[in-house]
Amino acid sequence: MQSALAYIKKNHSVFQADLETFLRIPSVSTEPRHRADVEQAAGWLAQQMEAAGLHDVSVLETHGHPVVFGQWLAAGESAPTVLVYGHYDVQPAAMEDGWAQDPFEPVIKDGRIIARGATDDKGQVMVQLKAWQALLATGTCPVNIKFLVEGEEEIGSPHLPAFVEEHREMLQADVCVVSDTSIRGPDQPSLVYGIRGLMTMELIVSGPRQDLHSGLGGMVHNPCQALAEIIAGLHDASGRVAVPGFYESVRDLTDMERRALARADLSRDEWDALTGAPEPWGEEGYTLLERFGGRPTLEINGIRGGYGGPGFKTVIGASAMAKISCRLVPDQDPDHIHDLVAARIRELAPATVRIELVRHAGGYPALTDPDHPALQAARAAYERCWGKEPLLMREGGSIPIVADFQRILDLPVVLLGFGLSDSRIHGPNENFPLEMFHRGLDTVVYFAHELAGRLVRS
Amino acid sequence: MQSALAYIKKNHSVFQADLETFLRIPSVSTEPRHRADVEQAAGWLAQQMEAAGLHDVSVLETHGHPVVFGQWLAAGESAPTVLVYGHYDVQPAAMEDGWAQDPFEPVIKDGRIIARGATDDKGQVMVQLKAWQALLATGTCPVNIKFLVEGEEEIGSPHLPAFVEEHREMLQADVCVVSDTSIRGPDQPSLVYGIRGLMTMELIVSGPRQDLHSGLGGMVHNPCQALAEIIAGLHDASGRVAVPGFYESVRDLTDMERRALARADLSRDEWDALTGAPEPWGEEGYTLLERFGGRPTLEINGIRGGYGGPGFKTVIGASAMAKISCRLVPDQDPDHIHDLVAARIRELAPATVRIELVRHAGGYPALTDPDHPALQAARAAYERCWGKEPLLMREGGSIPIVADFQRILDLPVVLLGFGLSDSRIHGPNENFPLEMFHRGLDTVVYFAHELAGRLVRS
Repeated sequence: MQSALAYIKKNHSVFQADLETFLRIPSVSTEPRHRADVEQAAGWLAQQMEAAGLHDVSVLETHGHPVVFGQWLAAGESAPTVLVYGHYDVQPAAMEDGWAQDPFEPVIKDGRIIARGATDDKGQVMVQLKAWQALLATGTCPVNIKFLVEGEEEIGSPHLPAFVEEHREMLQADVCVVSDTSIRGPDQPSLVYGIRGLMTMELIVSGPRQDLHSGLGGMVHNPCQALAEIIAGLHDASGRVAVPGFYESVRDLTDMERRALARADLSRDEWDALTGAPEPWGEEGYTLLERFGGRPTLEINGIRGGYGGPGFKTVIGASAMAKISCRLVPDQDPDHIHDLVAARIRELAPATVRIELVRHAGGYPALTDPDHPALQAARAAYERCWGKEPLLMREGGSIPIVADFQRILDLPVVLLGFGLSDSRIHGPNENFPLEMFHRGLDTVVYFAHELAGRLVRS
Repeated sequence: MQSALAYIKKNHSVFQADLETFLRIPSVSTEPRHRADVEQAAGWLAQQMEAAGLHDVSVLETHGHPVVFGQWLAAGESAPTVLVYGHYDVQPAAMEDGWAQDPFEPVIKDGRIIARGATDDKGQVMVQLKAWQALLATGTCPVNIKFLVEGEEEIGSPHLPAFVEEHREMLQADVCVVSDTSIRGPDQPSLVYGIRGLMTMELIVSGPRQDLHSGLGGMVHNPCQALAEIIAGLHDASGRVAVPGFYESVRDLTDMERRALARADLSRDEWDALTGAPEPWGEEGYTLLERFGGRPTLEINGIRGGYGGPGFKTVIGASAMAKISCRLVPDQDPDHIHDLVAARIRELAPATVRIELVRHAGGYPALTDPDHPALQAARAAYERCWGKEPLLMREGGSIPIVADFQRILDLPVVLLGFGLSDSRIHGPNENFPLEMFHRGLDTVVYFAHELAGRLVRS
């Protein structure tokens, strides 16, 4: 193991240069104009897997962007097999969103590497790949490895569940490891045992057959106004989602969980640093951290209607649109929640406008028992690297495929994250501290050995 | 007079060609990139005024886009003087708004000339200019004329009131005539004796210091949601504007007006043709036509927030924006209404977000006594051209400068409009029926003679 750690130390700058190359490929999965970039990222990653010593490396077609796969099974039949999952696609990024630099031209500043995908998830994919490379290169890898890196996570992994179903045998393993989450702070690791699910949809409200001069105002229900009135009906004054049945299948936080989350709760200063908003908001009766990971939400991710350019245009827009999403907790079902939200919107929509609903991708929430040996191995690995026991937490984001791995492959999932809360994932100036990159590499090596000692192949 | 009408008939195609040239200049006053086009439109119009036989033609600078002026005072001191007002600027127009063709490349289809500005107001400016040209060219003009055409009407005439104040003497007249409104239908003229005022503003709601990953959702008030909640608080369930004091200075419609408006009221079919929306909406207790011209409104002219592109982005936008306007009726004051709406928004805004208000331009509502001799002249002119008495109506749109002419120059204002309700002003595929263009030319000639017979110079 020491030889793997030494290999990592020796190769820090090479690994970092490879990450920079990866970050320069604008593999934005949601934008058709970046299709070729997404392909390029997949091909480049396959080369990296070959170089890391993985076998059977292949770029596998799906009905969307391809999956990159590679494996190393020479640890023997008695050793456990780890399935590493990550994604090489990224969120959109544009200078006008507030980037200080080209989001696809990484720069190092204050010890952080700044670029779209730095933390989510290219940086963390490289943590995994380079740590296993160190174990393989030094002949000290104690477990079998399978690597699956997809290109559609940021659009909700629409084709991966079918891919996993089809490749059930190829993906057989004893545990799934995902590095796509954050820890609490640079000096305080945390272990995420639950992530939220996701339901996304679009609401289009239309009225006049085309834009009208607002001089006609007073006898037509303005679609921007009607949209706002519908949106306003989706929450009550106590911050709860005002959709009948929305909370019905929510599994309550256990006393143990509430105690653990209370220990980890956010201070007002931490909340300020995280958000910069003037005052906290949310569901009454829950702490900030409970709202973050333990409770479901309904968010408006975008609104558009009428004229939004410079100056003023006295127009009544023919239609207005909102992108709406829900973060879900066990045991909410995205399909059922979609139907409840759709029914509520139909109930709120007046006869004076037409509405149209378009469903986008989503995914199930997931929880892994904090006492599972694989989670114990992760706890021990963090502790060995940081000298500090990790806090037990739930995460507010979603990795839809995590629930699918649990469901389809019946695997426990370990979220071995190394991002920080101020890494600005999905926002402008996304970054990954180089120290987290280096600690992550070591932690994966510790994890491999902790796992080998705890998990006996069934 | 017959010679002027004959001159018009002979020159129909020349006049139409001139209008097409005018429409090809994209003089969009609100967009800085069109500054040179606005200048070009002013210069071109000055040449047209010269050609029409006006004297002292000049392009006069303001603190914004220039004013084009010309006059002909040879009718003598005992003849009344008519001040013709119009505007050569237009609303923005882009293919993606739904135009079937380049909005600045006019085409003739089904007897209509289609282009941005066809009705509002280039087409109607040309009706005025070419009719007076006919009277001058045939030596039959019975009144003195002053022409004032501005380039900032579509942005609320921010510099014209000061210009009018400064040029009080130059603009002295007995009546002001404006062709910038519509008649009821191709076979039913109408005479507009009142127009609404306008107040425009922008509301910016901000929360997080930058866009956040929506995985953080549940502990931050989403600015798109907060904006929607504020907007939803600006109307009550009966369609009234829910701003305390908003209706306080509204002059009630008189019984005479309500009777006249009832005669002219819109049928459901007419409303359908006008709007295409599924059901009428508006203030309870008022007919459609009363809501249109006789009652004030509050409209959301545009909303923007978060991600609105293709696909989905699970983001909490740092801010969201709404463009808000009110159409005002006598005796509402735009400054006072701005303050009332701003106060209501501040009252509705929760402590969980920040708000910022930006005022845009506006203008006062205006009414002219339907019994004024100048309005009687207009009634007679419409009747001579159409063989039908015009309906007496109020108009929902705003021409801010009309109230300023009344206020500063103490002039009665005649709205001698020739647009149709389906001319789609401010919308895609704006058009002007050639028949209305031709009838308008004749009506202005009749009007000049009716006016000379009724209005004795004071």
